[in-house]
Amino acid sequence: MALDNKNNEFKVIGSTPNRPDGLDKVTGRARFGADISVPGMLHGAVVRSPHAHAKIVKIDASKALAMKGVKAVITRADFPEGLEGEDWNLQENAMAGEKALYDGHAVAAVAATSPLAARDAAKLIEVEYEVLLHVTDVDEAMKDGAPAIREGAADYSVPEGLHPNVVRFFDTGMGDLDKGFAEADLVVERSYTTEAAHQGYIEPHACLGQMGADGRGELWCCTQGHWFIRRMSTAVLGVETTNIRVTPSEIGGGFGGKTTITIEPLSLALSRKAGGAPVKMVMNRGEVLRATGPTSSASMDIKMGMTKDGKITAAHGTFRMQGGAFPGAPVDVTTMLAFANYTIENVHHIGYDVITNRPKQAAYRAPGAPMAAFAVESTVDEMCRTLGLDPIETRLKNASRDGTRSTFGPKFGPVGLVESLEAARDHANYKMPLGPNQGRGVASGYWMNWGGETSASVAMSEDGTVTVSVGTPDIGGSRASMALMAAEAFGIAYENVRVNISDTGALGVNEPTHGSRATYASGLATIKAAEECITKMCKRAADKWGIDADAVIWEDGSAKPSGPNAGEFDPLSIGEICAEMGETGGPISGHYEGSPTGFSGSFGTHVVDVEIDPETGHTTVLRYLVVQDAGKAIHPAYVEGQFQGGAAQGIGWALNEEYIYGEDGRLQNPVFLDYRIPVASDLPMIDTVIVEVPNPGHPYGVRGVGETGITPPLPALANAIADATGLRMRGLPMTPPKILAALKAQKNG
Amino acid sequence: MALDNKNNEFKVIGSTPNRPDGLDKVTGRARFGADISVPGMLHGAVVRSPHAHAKIVKIDASKALAMKGVKAVITRADFPEGLEGEDWNLQENAMAGEKALYDGHAVAAVAATSPLAARDAAKLIEVEYEVLLHVTDVDEAMKDGAPAIREGAADYSVPEGLHPNVVRFFDTGMGDLDKGFAEADLVVERSYTTEAAHQGYIEPHACLGQMGADGRGELWCCTQGHWFIRRMSTAVLGVETTNIRVTPSEIGGGFGGKTTITIEPLSLALSRKAGGAPVKMVMNRGEVLRATGPTSSASMDIKMGMTKDGKITAAHGTFRMQGGAFPGAPVDVTTMLAFANYTIENVHHIGYDVITNRPKQAAYRAPGAPMAAFAVESTVDEMCRTLGLDPIETRLKNASRDGTRSTFGPKFGPVGLVESLEAARDHANYKMPLGPNQGRGVASGYWMNWGGETSASVAMSEDGTVTVSVGTPDIGGSRASMALMAAEAFGIAYENVRVNISDTGALGVNEPTHGSRATYASGLATIKAAEECITKMCKRAADKWGIDADAVIWEDGSAKPSGPNAGEFDPLSIGEICAEMGETGGPISGHYEGSPTGFSGSFGTHVVDVEIDPETGHTTVLRYLVVQDAGKAIHPAYVEGQFQGGAAQGIGWALNEEYIYGEDGRLQNPVFLDYRIPVASDLPMIDTVIVEVPNPGHPYGVRGVGETGITPPLPALANAIADATGLRMRGLPMTPPKILAALKAQKNG
Repeated sequence: MALDNKNNEFKVIGSTPNRPDGLDKVTGRARFGADISVPGMLHGAVVRSPHAHAKIVKIDASKALAMKGVKAVITRADFPEGLEGEDWNLQENAMAGEKALYDGHAVAAVAATSPLAARDAAKLIEVEYEVLLHVTDVDEAMKDGAPAIREGAADYSVPEGLHPNVVRFFDTGMGDLDKGFAEADLVVERSYTTEAAHQGYIEPHACLGQMGADGRGELWCCTQGHWFIRRMSTAVLGVETTNIRVTPSEIGGGFGGKTTITIEPLSLALSRKAGGAPVKMVMNRGEVLRATGPTSSASMDIKMGMTKDGKITAAHGTFRMQGGAFPGAPVDVTTMLAFANYTIENVHHIGYDVITNRPKQAAYRAPGAPMAAFAVESTVDEMCRTLGLDPIETRLKNASRDGTRSTFGPKFGPVGLVESLEAARDHANYKMPLGPNQGRGVASGYWMNWGGETSASVAMSEDGTVTVSVGTPDIGGSRASMALMAAEAFGIAYENVRVNISDTGALGVNEPTHGSRATYASGLATIKAAEECITKMCKRAADKWGIDADAVIWEDGSAKPSGPNAGEFDPLSIGEICAEMGETGGPISGHYEGSPTGFSGSFGTHVVDVEIDPETGHTTVLRYLVVQDAGKAIHPAYVEGQFQGGAAQGIGWALNEEYIYGEDGRLQNPVFLDYRIPVASDLPMIDTVIVEVPNPGHPYGVRGVGETGITPPLPALANAIADATGLRMRGLPMTPPKILAALKAQKNG
Repeated sequence: MALDNKNNEFKVIGSTPNRPDGLDKVTGRARFGADISVPGMLHGAVVRSPHAHAKIVKIDASKALAMKGVKAVITRADFPEGLEGEDWNLQENAMAGEKALYDGHAVAAVAATSPLAARDAAKLIEVEYEVLLHVTDVDEAMKDGAPAIREGAADYSVPEGLHPNVVRFFDTGMGDLDKGFAEADLVVERSYTTEAAHQGYIEPHACLGQMGADGRGELWCCTQGHWFIRRMSTAVLGVETTNIRVTPSEIGGGFGGKTTITIEPLSLALSRKAGGAPVKMVMNRGEVLRATGPTSSASMDIKMGMTKDGKITAAHGTFRMQGGAFPGAPVDVTTMLAFANYTIENVHHIGYDVITNRPKQAAYRAPGAPMAAFAVESTVDEMCRTLGLDPIETRLKNASRDGTRSTFGPKFGPVGLVESLEAARDHANYKMPLGPNQGRGVASGYWMNWGGETSASVAMSEDGTVTVSVGTPDIGGSRASMALMAAEAFGIAYENVRVNISDTGALGVNEPTHGSRATYASGLATIKAAEECITKMCKRAADKWGIDADAVIWEDGSAKPSGPNAGEFDPLSIGEICAEMGETGGPISGHYEGSPTGFSGSFGTHVVDVEIDPETGHTTVLRYLVVQDAGKAIHPAYVEGQFQGGAAQGIGWALNEEYIYGEDGRLQNPVFLDYRIPVASDLPMIDTVIVEVPNPGHPYGVRGVGETGITPPLPALANAIADATGLRMRGLPMTPPKILAALKAQKNG
């Protein structure tokens, strides 16, 4: 009784059936975070610091509390003391203690009988601040004389003599850099910067929390990972994890930004203080931009050496990243993946995690990777241009592949970089003629993917239909892909599987839908749990036939006698076996708990054509091609959606998006009119090619595909702009004013 | 690694900690059926037949549909055709087809934007009936000339020549009746009747259903068993089971009456017709009484033989029961359990399941058993009085016990009837002096209990606290008792366990909380699942220590090295093991699926003292004692509550409760003012004694205790009234007018 998919001959996998959540979403019936309502609920509002850095001298809530309809006000005094490490960071970020650390930092919250009353009451809470010097730029924050945001925040990794704002330090590498650079015909050394970009999910954070005086309660929220929310919220509130049952809503995007807490512990603390009434909280866009994680901004120095025939001989990168007022900028990942596209014998990475007066960064799609890709892939492109080499052929020459040692240590297994480069080279887009002011850019990117803690259950129903319970919220189509994988395993129709996202009270621990892990890990878990069901059903059939369970095979949704018993009994269908399960031993379910380690990274290559308007500096994206390795595309339409979504976000980050801080340390563009994400008219149809190099660590060959796609667009666009204009833009975003200024400088000089 | 509870030395089991749902319930935060609200929901109302039996000629909904706010009207035409067997019964009962079969039978339903609009619209739906002859009494329904309610409803068991209203027939027994009666010194033959009694739960049926055009949806409802509701609702609607995810609310009582569907498929059908808007439906008390199952009424003939020293030599019982317009009166159980208290060699049972123009009966606490107990225990009492024998000693002489063959076939294992009789005999209540017009009655009762399809999961949390997921709604304290059993198994504090009732999307199939199965079966499942977690945690400790898993024992919430490794390593606590589980192999959970068969019945003996007012015929219950076998009382306060609740309901059924039908076949008392359940002032404090004869089929010895308690009160009160007055009341309820009339007849005759 083994599933034979050695030849990848799939029956339903690879098809693109209707989405199980499609009807609900197009008719508006899907319940997102702010759609959760319960009778008698209160509404919460947050008082936020208008200062980037300020001592909180006094908070007077008496006027607010005197207001009709106000039921509770909380400050940091309503949270337990004595937390340490990341728990303290989470608590401090959820509600400021002695100091407000960034513009938008929560300093108090109020619950009242209506959203309006809560907002009015929040305005009546008087906070007396003593404003302190602030710093928001990563390079400035490292300089002597920069205000120290928090003494003692640095960990053991930081060498002596650095500014106290440097809180973590990374230094990794291998080979002999001097030797490598000596072997090069061309050595290039360049500096780059990227700005913080927000995940820009459509749905703001929203939750409804209820907590009794007994410390027990419920939380409904929009999240990528409700076990993370449970653990973090209970840590911040000082209760045991299982005290709070967390149920995820539908989610209107997360991209990494909804793997941590913001308002969730506030709603629970307000509820507890308001006598246990449920408290609903919904952020507005300004709160999302000011107080939830954008990604880090970065300042980077790259030095690379290349022979004249295109072999990369050595690489060195220094990455300075700020992640807001708390440790956690993804510089560990940045240093790890910076040169991962290439087989380089001599490589060295230096990383600095720096705190500034900005909101606590959160994961954003391939966190840490796009910044490095921008710097490294721009440098490689510049070297190819200087040496007159084709960018794809040069990448092919150096490409990481099965058996090569990665620049971060371990050897690669089967990976699809070569295949993605070849498919990009052979694609029509790569051969399209270009006109005046037009240019083409190429870049590759990588994300290592992840397994992570995973629990799933599969339960048979009385009519042989199947319920799958997973703990990874469905952001990018995981209900459809789990249903396809379960249907494939059982040999039944996709429509006969229903996939549910379980709450924290009904399943073992799950990491969030992050790290491109859901289709891989929850998918593997679903298949393993389905196989357990199949084994049990074969046993039921064997018992009925009075033969050995080993003599039963599972084929096309039925148990069949095999070997010496083949043909002796009529097959028993899944429906027939399940109809009798109550009498033949009870319910049939299968389960999986584990931290699967067979994940494998996904490489991709992007090709973009742009046209630069010499009058305005505006970049028009003419055509865009994403080629990426999916291992095996379970539901190809969703895979293409991931490719396109990653490209769209990367284009925004490359061309327009940025956090703009004023002299006063306040965010100047906390609204989508000013924080400019791409709209439909900014983008062409994004072409896709799905490369399938099966991942041997997944039963059906799956690789996560969610993150790689945001990595190449930043350099691909810079390279295309360079191709169109001859200008090498080394600071993101490459906005029209910046390009126009560069064009003018080029003309003048 | 085995749990050693052979000596029943428990640490937390048997204590009475606070209820996990206590705070929510006393503060009003618990969400019952009618508390579920979602944005944009509609409200449903049902049009019900005013006739007991009538052809539905025409339904005109045009006026209702023209009303503002009305979104959908459904009739039987909105349900699929072609159902068979019990599925057809369920569909027909949910919504009448060609005929209305009882007063209150649903014939149409409407959804509108407010409850008031829905009720108004329901009044505008015009139904043209052709009234047919009806019958509501079980004896009348079997007579020649009684209207046949449905031709062809009878199954193969019914002998030829019986009225077509007899739909099932039972004939079981053993031994030689003639020989047995010949051995008797006294043979008594008597007839008895009981009326239908309603379960009388505080909370009316309520649900909220949402179903899309794709046939998929959600249902929230107040139920004892959401998998049953899922299976039945989907069958009635003609979709596959997993299409509907059913989430149970808190439940304000069920007593068997909430194990089936009523308005649930109507809300889903209305939702589907209204374009997928959620539809909330809440019954009023009149609908509950008219259209949801009361128990069966019964007409019974008992013949028993006894020697002069009290040995029962033979018994014969004939049981005629009506269960409304559909097959299903619990006469199978009635015949099975009628004489179960006694070891009788010669016994015979005849049963008739009869349909009438009444609502479809539903299970009611020990369904079928109290009627038979009333008849048999009254007869035994009469025989004891005639022969001058003590009723308890006589019962002890004949009592079923470990190793005796039951009157329904199998041998008993360890059971507690003897112990309950001895405890009753030795209790102070049995020795209290009685005054004028006072009398004492004794009766015993039995329920065989049940295992049933059971799924449960136990998940470890990162801090070593525990989540238990069971599928049996918590009606009588199962969250507390599961938490106690899990805490006992893990060796941790009760407060560190949280028990959740999973929805149908998150766990394998579960039968309802019925048959007194929840504490036994979900408890056994919880313990088994906890043991799986413990085994896994021992393995993690063994791996960490580098020793064999068999060399690790679990004690007091910690893994400890044992045998040759004892003392070699410090114990690893549950919290320490769980804190590392992500890195040591992933999440830790345990599961159980099965239909456990080790359940064992519970015997009980009740002693009641009454005083009869000779002026009014009113019965005052002076004192009441319940003695019952719990196997092992997990949470004794809840066990006592079950004993007291059963007694209270039995007292109501014995003295006051009845369905009163008029000549027109309409229920005359569909309101609690006229359908008179006991109120606090009707009842004394009910004394309890918990007997503990451990059930060897449960790890901790548990027997279900939920049902037995309603069985003895009916005869105990009749016997007490006989003791007080010399009157033998053979028809329930024994209301003041009936007793007064009997007293007058006694005086006059």
